[in-house]
Amino acid sequence: MNQQQLTEILFTAKKQKGLKFADLETLLGRDEVWVAALFYGQARAELDEAQKLGQALSLDADAIEALQDFPLKGLGPMVPTDPLIYRFYEILQVYGMPLKAIIHEKFGDGIMSAIDFSMNVEKETDPKGDRVHISMSGKFLPYKKW
Amino acid sequence: MNQQQLTEILFTAKKQKGLKFADLETLLGRDEVWVAALFYGQARAELDEAQKLGQALSLDADAIEALQDFPLKGLGPMVPTDPLIYRFYEILQVYGMPLKAIIHEKFGDGIMSAIDFSMNVEKETDPKGDRVHISMSGKFLPYKKW
Amino acid sequence: MNQQQLTEILFTAKKQKGLKFADLETLLGRDEVWVAALFYGQARAELDEAQKLGQALSLDADAIEALQDFPLKGLGPMVPTDPLIYRFYEILQVYGMPLKAIIHEKFGDGIMSAIDFSMNVEKETDPKGDRVHISMSGKFLPYKKW
Amino acid sequence: MNQQQLTEILFTAKKQKGLKFADLETLLGRDEVWVAALFYGQARAELDEAQKLGQALSLDADAIEALQDFPLKGLGPMVPTDPLIYRFYEILQVYGMPLKAIIHEKFGDGIMSAIDFSMNVEKETDPKGDRVHISMSGKFLPYKKW
Amino acid sequence: MNQQQLTEILFTAKKQKGLKFADLETLLGRDEVWVAALFYGQARAELDEAQKLGQALSLDADAIEALQDFPLKGLGPMVPTDPLIYRFYEILQVYGMPLKAIIHEKFGDGIMSAIDFSMNVEKETDPKGDRVHISMSGKFLPYKKW
Amino acid sequence: MNQQQLTEILFTAKKQKGLKFADLETLLGRDEVWVAALFYGQARAELDEAQKLGQALSLDADAIEALQDFPLKGLGPMVPTDPLIYRFYEILQVYGMPLKAIIHEKFGDGIMSAIDFSMNVEKETDPKGDRVHISMSGKFLPYKKW
Amino acid sequence: MNQQQLTEILFTAKKQKGLKFADLETLLGRDEVWVAALFYGQARAELDEAQKLGQALSLDADAIEALQDFPLKGLGPMVPTDPLIYRFYEILQVYGMPLKAIIHEKFGDGIMSAIDFSMNVEKETDPKGDRVHISMSGKFLPYKKW
Amino acid sequence: MNQQQLTEILFTAKKQKGLKFADLETLLGRDEVWVAALFYGQARAELDEAQKLGQALSLDADAIEALQDFPLKGLGPMVPTDPLIYRFYEILQVYGMPLKAIIHEKFGDGIMSAIDFSMNVEKETDPKGDRVHISMSGKFLPYKKW
Amino acid sequence: MNQQQLTEILFTAKKQKGLKFADLETLLGRDEVWVAALFYGQARAELDEAQKLGQALSLDADAIEALQDFPLKGLGPMVPTDPLIYRFYEILQVYGMPLKAIIHEKFGDGIMSAIDFSMNVEKETDPKGDRVHISMSGKFLPYKKW
Amino acid sequence: MNQQQLTEILFTAKKQKGLKFADLETLLGRDEVWVAALFYGQARAELDEAQKLGQALSLDADAIEALQDFPLKGLGPMVPTDPLIYRFYEILQVYGMPLKAIIHEKFGDGIMSAIDFSMNVEKETDPKGDRVHISMSGKFLPYKKW
Repeated sequence: MNQQQLTEILFTAKKQKGLKFADLETLLGRDEVWVAALFYGQARAELDEAQKLGQALSLDADAIEALQDFPLKGLGPMVPTDPLIYRFYEILQVYGMPLKAIIHEKFGDGIMSAIDFSMNVEKETDPKGDRVHISMSGKFLPYKKW
Repeated sequence: MNQQQLTEILFTAKKQKGLKFADLETLLGRDEVWVAALFYGQARAELDEAQKLGQALSLDADAIEALQDFPLKGLGPMVPTDPLIYRFYEILQVYGMPLKAIIHEKFGDGIMSAIDFSMNVEKETDPKGDRVHISMSGKFLPYKKW
Repeated sequence: MNQQQLTEILFTAKKQKGLKFADLETLLGRDEVWVAALFYGQARAELDEAQKLGQALSLDADAIEALQDFPLKGLGPMVPTDPLIYRFYEILQVYGMPLKAIIHEKFGDGIMSAIDFSMNVEKETDPKGDRVHISMSGKFLPYKKW
Repeated sequence: MNQQQLTEILFTAKKQKGLKFADLETLLGRDEVWVAALFYGQARAELDEAQKLGQALSLDADAIEALQDFPLKGLGPMVPTDPLIYRFYEILQVYGMPLKAIIHEKFGDGIMSAIDFSMNVEKETDPKGDRVHISMSGKFLPYKKW
Repeated sequence: MNQQQLTEILFTAKKQKGLKFADLETLLGRDEVWVAALFYGQARAELDEAQKLGQALSLDADAIEALQDFPLKGLGPMVPTDPLIYRFYEILQVYGMPLKAIIHEKFGDGIMSAIDFSMNVEKETDPKGDRVHISMSGKFLPYKKW
Repeated sequence: MNQQQLTEILFTAKKQKGLKFADLETLLGRDEVWVAALFYGQARAELDEAQKLGQALSLDADAIEALQDFPLKGLGPMVPTDPLIYRFYEILQVYGMPLKAIIHEKFGDGIMSAIDFSMNVEKETDPKGDRVHISMSGKFLPYKKW
Repeated sequence: MNQQQLTEILFTAKKQKGLKFADLETLLGRDEVWVAALFYGQARAELDEAQKLGQALSLDADAIEALQDFPLKGLGPMVPTDPLIYRFYEILQVYGMPLKAIIHEKFGDGIMSAIDFSMNVEKETDPKGDRVHISMSGKFLPYKKW
Repeated sequence: MNQQQLTEILFTAKKQKGLKFADLETLLGRDEVWVAALFYGQARAELDEAQKLGQALSLDADAIEALQDFPLKGLGPMVPTDPLIYRFYEILQVYGMPLKAIIHEKFGDGIMSAIDFSMNVEKETDPKGDRVHISMSGKFLPYKKW
Repeated sequence: MNQQQLTEILFTAKKQKGLKFADLETLLGRDEVWVAALFYGQARAELDEAQKLGQALSLDADAIEALQDFPLKGLGPMVPTDPLIYRFYEILQVYGMPLKAIIHEKFGDGIMSAIDFSMNVEKETDPKGDRVHISMSGKFLPYKKW
Repeated sequence: MNQQQLTEILFTAKKQKGLKFADLETLLGRDEVWVAALFYGQARAELDEAQKLGQALSLDADAIEALQDFPLKGLGPMVPTDPLIYRFYEILQVYGMPLKAIIHEKFGDGIMSAIDFSMNVEKETDPKGDRVHISMSGKFLPYKKW
């Protein structure tokens, strides 16, 4: 079973069960963004997480095992063409250097970890148009000198 | 005066005045990320903002005028090689599709605006290592049907 | 069912029914360009739109459901090689900067939305050779300051 | 004098004279988009047009001559990173195939010319947010068989 | 039936019938280069042309219909690696700017159409080695001013 | 003196002398396309050719010597963005495979040389619009077996 | 039968017959490098060569016919990642300009043909480590002037 | 002094002294290809070699020192556009896999070194057209197992 | 059997047998990194190694034979998107030039072989977080002069 | 002062002082690889480190200040062409996936940090040819779940 097949199985099962990612957040005790990342093979489940999800979605043993693998991460296309994903790439194009300047000024030489990292998405109702609120938290890793 | 020259003038003046972006945030009444974006020509100042900044940094008339121009935006290199900036690109590679799934589930067909958009950066002190906290807020734009 | 299969099913059914996009424009109350975008998975139908189209084209339940999904948008290849599509890319290459200058002069700093956007195509009969007339209307989105 | 220098001279002169592209449209009897294209070397002036513009902007003889040259056209970077220009590229990504289907259905096999072509930009005031209205007209060129 | 399948069907049938492109030139009253373009989906047949070809090659109804479709044009790979095709790309690399200079000097600002265009190939016998003679004729399209 | 400087010197001198490429064709006894190729460093002059051209354009000794050098050939950018040059690239994209099929059928396995090669450009007056006629002649080089 | 299938058939048959390329060199009277090129569809067999090879490898009629076709040449990936092939690319990167200088000095303006070309590989036993000896011979093609 | 400046100094001096690479081969006791590689910064001279060359070409101390540096190697553009250099790239595209097959069959798993490597170029006079003969010798490096 | 299929067979068998790479290191007398390279077709087994591995993993004869083939090496995507692999690419981006400077200073002009090369990975337990220790050893290959 | 200028100043000063990176390792109490990284702007000095280095190399105040800046990291060209640096890229191409498999098996889901990271280079004298020994140590960062 390759990752694309696993992703299709998971989305089909979720639709048939009438579940939302928010329901799976409650079930697994993990943020819905992380759960969606698991659906796309960008995160990896422990045995008990795979079993809970397997039960909720009526997955077979192969799918439950596949949820515990280490697939290749990364979406692939260098510059995304999907408009929703592109906007985040554009933010990086436009605000990448300003972010670098601010983080170096506040923290010194180093980076924000993309591994010891979490992110969540909230919907803010607004009469002028709802807003997407995204919050990221990553450990600052100072460059080691040696 | 091209944008790169303007950027150098601004950073040199800021260093000579001993100012931090947080000081300019107070001065201009604009978030420090936006101010850093202005330094890189990724945002554009109104006349009064350009003048306030010009006074604080002792800029000449040309620089004050250039702050009000519309330069080409975007950093240029398609895949960034600077490690700090790359981490954000990696977040997009790894969590782009999950974000798309979550946003579509919460909002329907559309995107988060990168224009009607704000972002700020905070430092969270943590005994296990400080954390970078980034918060983004963008208007949800539903696809128009016609 | 992936998007490419859905696209083939839709075009085959349309040909067998002897329908033109203009007929579907009348049927759905949506512009024919939008309907063609739906055929290629670049737009998304609501339940009632999917059902109307399903009835007109005798689609099965899977196709009707697939019309309501959120596929990856974008053609993929960075520089198109099809001559018809390339001409629009060339217009962008040749007139992109002039457009930027005119829009900034008329509206200030911001963009024309590609989301709150509509487009239609008309045929103008002309003895010196018919003309394609394309009309686009997009909401101006001013850059937010924060 | 290379094209980039000419572009800077033209924009500087226009700013010093306090002229807008709409003023130059009146002066030259050419649409303001075409005039902006001339500023970027994407269009070419005849002798009388170059002289009229030269007089209005107080250009020297070299600049007036350079306006009549044939520079290399095209913006260069394959995928534009400026957000305003990118939106048009995105429209091409998202609506390129639908446009191809509609144009072929209405006109047969061929293309819309990007040479025998005109475009203009209008501002539509709208209480929900102003709109950019772009209108393109290109001659349909049917594929010749031989 | 996709284009690649159609191309294979056509070449296999042509080989089985023992026909050369020159024979099909006579049959269809179209130049052999155009016929070869049709085989690769780079040109499109009218109903009667598709039927004549169908009869000559004993094609079934699906193939005859497919000959009248509008497939995506363009070979795909940006820089060709096949030596025969590359030589034409090299001619463009080496003589592209000279061609531009000559055509602008003779015709003014504009292009040679690749749509209102024909090309043929002849074999010139020569004791020092046969020569390929290629002749292209394209309508000159002057840039429209507006 | 690098090639770009030489090209500028040659074009400036030609404009000041009021000469056309057709005049230089007569002077040098070489086709005007070849002469234009020489201007761009894509061809190389013998001593007597360089001297004749030097006299006609009043070039200094350095330029006359530079005309006899072996510069790097090729325009550089992989996919051209200038519309005039792109049309030839598009011809290659659309008709490259058909050309390959026709040449193999007429000549066997081999290529048309881009070295033992000549090309000329003629203007065909036509009431429906003038036509560009390009004629290429290249030696056929059969693949050697060994 | 596509080229990849033919390549697999040929390598499998050669392995089953226990033949080396040197054996096929003797059988066909062609250098083993050329024979290997034929296996990868980079060269083309005449009827008698295809039949001899067919007999030696017990090929069926389809494979024998396919050996006489004109497949697309070129390996595809622009920069090879296989270490053995990359070394030849590196030689080109490092010694390409020096080769150009030497060949121009010895022969004048022109190229070494890659068509009227042969190459062979020999193993030189050496106590300090065996050496690969590659010998290439290509016709010099002087640039034609016209 | 950067490498490009050094290369220009060396070629200019060689032309003024009326020397050929073959003369420098005799002077330095190194093959002319290696000497040309040194001119382009693709090889590195020892002190005595730099001094001998410095004397022959009347170089100043800076140039003699620069000949002993370790510049970045590699010509840069991934796919060369100069026709002479491209032919070697094409040989790699067409004959790369056959070479791999032959070398593995003769030597086992490993590569031909591009470091412990030499190459020379000879002119073979031939009434049907002179031939370029290139001879490469590289140490075979078997993959180490560990 | 292609390489991808072989890789899947090997990983599936290893999982079913409950073996770790460290177990296979003991079995084959080869470092576990080399064994993993063999799983991905980046190394090649001798007959006895293939048989030992075949016995341990209950492979069939085809798989045992395939382990002795010479597949194309190299992972393919030019810039890796998997975060674990990317970090090594980043190390190259950030520390590549420093490494070049240090190696040239210590060894002179040459390279570290990637063929006569070994690498191993160790886990260092550390209360502040375990560390990955990677050790590479490659033969220095001085550039040959000739 | 840009980074390239700083790099040149540092290398020139080091050569004039007759210092090796090993001497600077002793002076600064930092590994020589880190010092070389500092020379290329890939690492950043604290005030006292910049001053010590400034004294040893007789740098002026500007250079000492520039050593404390945060330049853009990354060498730039996506695939390196310098043979020494390419070998490390090749190691990544060939052994990247095996490394991923081994690290996941030993540590679980996560990466080796390229930030909390050190590397050193040693020369191993060996009668069969000296060896480069590179040792890397990076903190393992397990993927955080949230």
